[in-house]
Order: sequence, then structure tokens, then C-alpha cells
Amino acid sequence: MTDAAVQALTEEDYAERMARAAIAAADAGLAGLLITPGPDMVWLCGYQPTAVTERLTLLVLSADTEPQLVVPALERPDAESAPGAGALRMTDWKDGTDPYGAVTWLLAAGGRYGVSDNAWALHLLGLQRTLPGGSYRALTDALPMLRAVKDEHEVARLAAAGAAADATYRDILSVPFDGRKEADIAADLARLLREHGHSQVDFTVVGSGPNGANPHHEAGERTIRTGDMVVLDFGGLKDGYGSDTTRTVHVGEPTAEAQRIHDIVRTAQQTAFEAVRPGAACQDIDRAARAVIEDAGYGEYFIHRTGHGIGVTTHEPPYMVEGEHQELVPGMCFSIEPGIYLPGRFGVRIEDIVVCTEDGRRRLNNTPHELAVVS
Amino acid sequence: MTDAAVQALTEEDYAERMARAAIAAADAGLAGLLITPGPDMVWLCGYQPTAVTERLTLLVLSADTEPQLVVPALERPDAESAPGAGALRMTDWKDGTDPYGAVTWLLAAGGRYGVSDNAWALHLLGLQRTLPGGSYRALTDALPMLRAVKDEHEVARLAAAGAAADATYRDILSVPFDGRKEADIAADLARLLREHGHSQVDFTVVGSGPNGANPHHEAGERTIRTGDMVVLDFGGLKDGYGSDTTRTVHVGEPTAEAQRIHDIVRTAQQTAFEAVRPGAACQDIDRAARAVIEDAGYGEYFIHRTGHGIGVTTHEPPYMVEGEHQELVPGMCFSIEPGIYLPGRFGVRIEDIVVCTEDGRRRLNNTPHELAVVS
Repeated sequence: MTDAAVQALTEEDYAERMARAAIAAADAGLAGLLITPGPDMVWLCGYQPTAVTERLTLLVLSADTEPQLVVPALERPDAESAPGAGALRMTDWKDGTDPYGAVTWLLAAGGRYGVSDNAWALHLLGLQRTLPGGSYRALTDALPMLRAVKDEHEVARLAAAGAAADATYRDILSVPFDGRKEADIAADLARLLREHGHSQVDFTVVGSGPNGANPHHEAGERTIRTGDMVVLDFGGLKDGYGSDTTRTVHVGEPTAEAQRIHDIVRTAQQTAFEAVRPGAACQDIDRAARAVIEDAGYGEYFIHRTGHGIGVTTHEPPYMVEGEHQELVPGMCFSIEPGIYLPGRFGVRIEDIVVCTEDGRRRLNNTPHELAVVS
Repeated sequence: MTDAAVQALTEEDYAERMARAAIAAADAGLAGLLITPGPDMVWLCGYQPTAVTERLTLLVLSADTEPQLVVPALERPDAESAPGAGALRMTDWKDGTDPYGAVTWLLAAGGRYGVSDNAWALHLLGLQRTLPGGSYRALTDALPMLRAVKDEHEVARLAAAGAAADATYRDILSVPFDGRKEADIAADLARLLREHGHSQVDFTVVGSGPNGANPHHEAGERTIRTGDMVVLDFGGLKDGYGSDTTRTVHVGEPTAEAQRIHDIVRTAQQTAFEAVRPGAACQDIDRAARAVIEDAGYGEYFIHRTGHGIGVTTHEPPYMVEGEHQELVPGMCFSIEPGIYLPGRFGVRIEDIVVCTEDGRRRLNNTPHELAVVS
């Protein structure tokens, strides 16, 4: 990866994204898109308010008109300094006035709009009240794949974030585990992610012994001991793009059973990885991993879907889950993270970020899958 | 404040809050409340998922039934460890099933529900689609004062957070300003807030010289120099409750004009403070501050409302703004933060958190209001 590959996005890049989104909306039969602060807005115009509050900030995209960003007056200077600000028109509304009234002139009466998944209900209800004839669909339902296909620039950033997560994993293998608390290892992971260039740490799961059997256990006061299996699942944002990787390590030599469970998960992860190709359905990736675990007799202990997309967030479409018929397209980046969770005993999960390529697939995490022994 | 005043909330405390909210909803003509992850959920049952995602987590409160929390199956262990979990019934839904279908049995057909302001549009649209006969109001519109009146326990926590912010301000006065960047001072503020017990830093505004004229400027690469006015606005959460204070300092001796502008803001802040009493309207507090600044000829440079509530968030109802007729009630805690912003030159803001008491008011920030000279 060259430095050029991770250079800053330009006004033209944002203009192109906004135009593409507006066209996709029209193709989907929508009058336009209503985008609120969060990953959609960051991706489309590079603007992220200091805080997401009850004050309405709304980007309106439609195929007929220029992009319009409506902001609270006192946040306008910040909005004007966003990298995509030159590619849109901006208006503002002042405290004490009705923000919904301030956007209605931008909206088509009776129009059907796609709205950011994470738009506040407060704002959606305000729009529904002010424009009772309109209708709304969640962006993920209307255009689930809007941000799903990453361009070369984005894959380069995801690869850089993945490499930083790999470096974090390599470093964590040499810290002491026995006798320390989960929370201490989690702090080490957060520190290492930042040292390796992350600006934001989203999660640092350290699930030792029985805690590892809870896939969403973060890290707590439990003291790790020799004989523990420990799930390490960590990630965040580096240069605006996400990392998310999981490796399961063992403190001291594993038992034959621990090794066998780990081998099953490892095979499941590899099998799902090899199922990635353009045209495969998302659910096929889930099925590929699940079949391995079910055949080994542990199907009931794989209690979550196999993966999720990643980009400017660490958790987004496409989802590798039964019932998701979306076909994979070159440029889609997502996690493959099967696991086995034995309640009261331990858990195992192995996770890499993978990009679907023209000729198949490529991992964006590249640390070994073997069960590492730590001390 | 005694240690007992900041002891952990019990299951009974959460049961009482949820019962009170359900009754308030019924009194407001609602069938119930639909609460999603965020400050409402933390306040009502003490539960905060590791991450707020597209997976539906919903607390349903109504006067007729026990509180019900619906969670994704894989997050159930975390939810069960929430301090208020014993005061509610829990059900879960699994990846690949319809989460909205999993909650409809809890909802009255055709019912009118209050929904968390920050509930995702994705979820509100899911509920509207699954239960087309229902109607919804944002919680802030339906029950704006649900969390606004703080009990003794909460005021004690806010006072402790305020004291920590005061200690941070006292410490920052002795760091060097001249020749350092805004971002360096902001890092000092964040470090000091944590040293004084904050678990979360929400904002560290350092607006030097012309940057101070943007009320929402955070902190940047500008190097601070002698002769600069510098707005310092910082806060976050300590033991789950918020701090938010602003002082404006001057690097070296101020000019007569700088001193005069600061005096106007100081008088406006004091005048608004003295207007706080049970029965006063929120807009009266805004008007009291604004009148001072308008009378001095700077009305057009006071470009935001005078204040906002604070509690488990640093930004919530009640709002001290023209048009807000809500009467103040003992226990309401909010900011009073007038300012004057001279574009291209400098800004001044002074902010304290204030609690409305039976006999008037009390500040929860207690550092001097005089224009401090730093070096």
C-alpha cells in the first residue's frame, strides 16, 4: 500500500459519492435520501458534528437538485470546514425556530425518502408530523448496499487498519496473562491499538474461561489463570476506517478438548473464507461456517451470525446471516467470525476481515490462526 | 456531600423510576413507553449495551404490566448483569428472526407510545411497519420533564461532577498557555477531568482568539499567544452524572474592551442565575441573560440559547430558550451560559450548572467569575 492510497478524500470524491447515492435512491424509487450525523454523513460529505444532539442536522440528497445540508446556525462554521462542504449547498436554522419547517422546502410533498438508520426518532417523528404525506424507509432497508462496495482507496484504509490490528495481536502475545485481570489485558489492547495508529477504540473483548462463552462479554474483574482459554476481540477506527479481529489464545498448554474445539472453529473460518466469491450469497458464507460446526456436533453452540460488513463503522451491512440473499460483489469487506460457546466453560472465536475480489477473496488480517499459547 | 449520597443505585431505585415513568406515561394519555439504549435506558434500569447497533434492544414500560426488556439473545448475559435487571422481565430474540415481531405481543394494538428521542429510525420504522395502527411521540415531546427533576442522590452526583470540573479549572490556570496549541490545552483539560474522577470526557473546547467566536469550536492547531482571549468549556461524566462548565481566560493583561465584554457576560450570567426560582419559566432565564447583553448593545452577538438540562447526559431538557414555558421545579439542574461572540476577533462565555431549590437556586460550579489572567 502506498501513501497515496490513503491520502485524504477530496471535495470531488465527496461530490461523486453524493451523486452516486442520489442516483441509487432514484433507481430504488425514492424521492431522495435524508442523512443525519453518523457514518452515512461522514461517508457522503465528511461532516461529523462535535456531538450528535437533539438539534437537527440533515443532508438532503435527490437526483434533481444539488446536495443540501441543513445545520443549526451555531454549528455552521464547523460544517463549513468539513472536507465535502464545497460540494453541497448549506442553510441553517436558529435556536427557537422550527427545524422541521426549515427543511420542508427541500422535500417533495408525498415523497418517499430513505432515512439514515440511526436518525433519531425525535427527528423522524418531526418530519412525519410536518410532512404527513411523506413516507420513509430505513436506509439499510432501502439501499442496504450503498456503502457496502468499497473502492480501492477504502480497501487500502481497511487493510491499513487490519495491519494495525495484526500488530496489536502480535504485541499482546508477549504480555503476561496469568494473574492479571481481563480489564488489564483490555487496557493493553486499547493502548496498543492507539500506538499502532487507531484514533478510536470501539471494543476490547477479553473473555477468559467461562466469560469467553458470552460472545459479547467485554472485559471485567476476573483474574486470568493458567488453563484458561481467552477470547480477544478488538477493533476501532484508523484514519476513518475500521478494524475488527478475533483470536483465541490459551494460557499454558491446552487440553486435547480445548485444542479440538479450536480446530473446529479454525476449519469453519477457513471454509467460510474459501466460500467467498463474487455471486455467492451472504447466507452462503454463514452456511459454510455453520456446516463445519454442525457436522462436528457443536451447532447449538454457535449462537450468532457469521459476519458483518465494515467500513467507516466497525459494524454495517452486508450481514453474513441465514436469509440474506444479497450476492457478494468485488469490493465488499466484511468479517468472518464463527465461534463455539460452551456455557460455564469457555468460548472460541476466530475472526478476520475479508474483501471479496474479482477472482475470489483476500484477508485483511494476516496473523496465524493456530491456537497461541501465552503465559 | 457524604459517601452515602453517591452510593450505587439499587434494584429498588430502578423499580421506582420505571414505575414512576409508567405512571407519568399513563397520565399523559400514552399506552406506554418504548425505551432504547442510551440515557433513558441507563436512567430507568441501569443497562447500557456494549455498543448501540442495528440489533433491537427495547424496554417497554406501561402502567398495566411489569417492565419488559427485549434483548438480542447474545447480549442477554450482559443485560442480566445490569443493576436494574432484577426489577424487570427479560425476553430475547435470535439473529435471523424478526425483532419487531418479538415485541408486538408487548404492545397494545392502536396504542400511542412515547419513544426515546434517540431511538434509531430503523427501529421506529420497524415498529410502524409491524404495528401500523400504533402511533408514536418522541419522549421529549411527550414527557419532556421525565428525567428533569433530580432527586437528592442525583443532585449530589451532579455536585460531585461539578466539583471535579472546578478542580480541573483551578489546575488549568497554572499550565502555560502562550506558545502552546489549543489541542494541547484540550488534552490537559481531558487529563485533569479524568484525574479528578471523570470516567468520560464529552468535550474540551479551547477557543482562542478568533476561534472563541465560534461557540462550538472544539480545539485545533492554532497556537495561543499573549493577548488572546480563550474560552474553556469542558465536561463529561463522573459516576454516571454530568459536568459542564465554561470560563474565559486571558493570556496576559486584557484590554479595556476585552474586560468590558467579559463584565457584560458576567453580569448576564449572574442576572440569569438570580432569576432562577420555582415557578419561573425556562424562557425567563434566557430573557434575563439576553436583556443584559442586549442592553449593552451586543444582542446580535449572543447567538445561542442560555442553557440546557444536565443529568445522566451533559445535554438534555429543560432548555432555557425563548418559547419554553415550562416552569422550573426544585431539583431541576441546568446550565446558564450566556456569551458574546465577535466574529473574527474573540468570544466570551461563562457557564455554571445550577440547581433550582425550594427557596431559589444553588450553583454546582463554584470557581470565580472574574476574568483570570494566565500566562
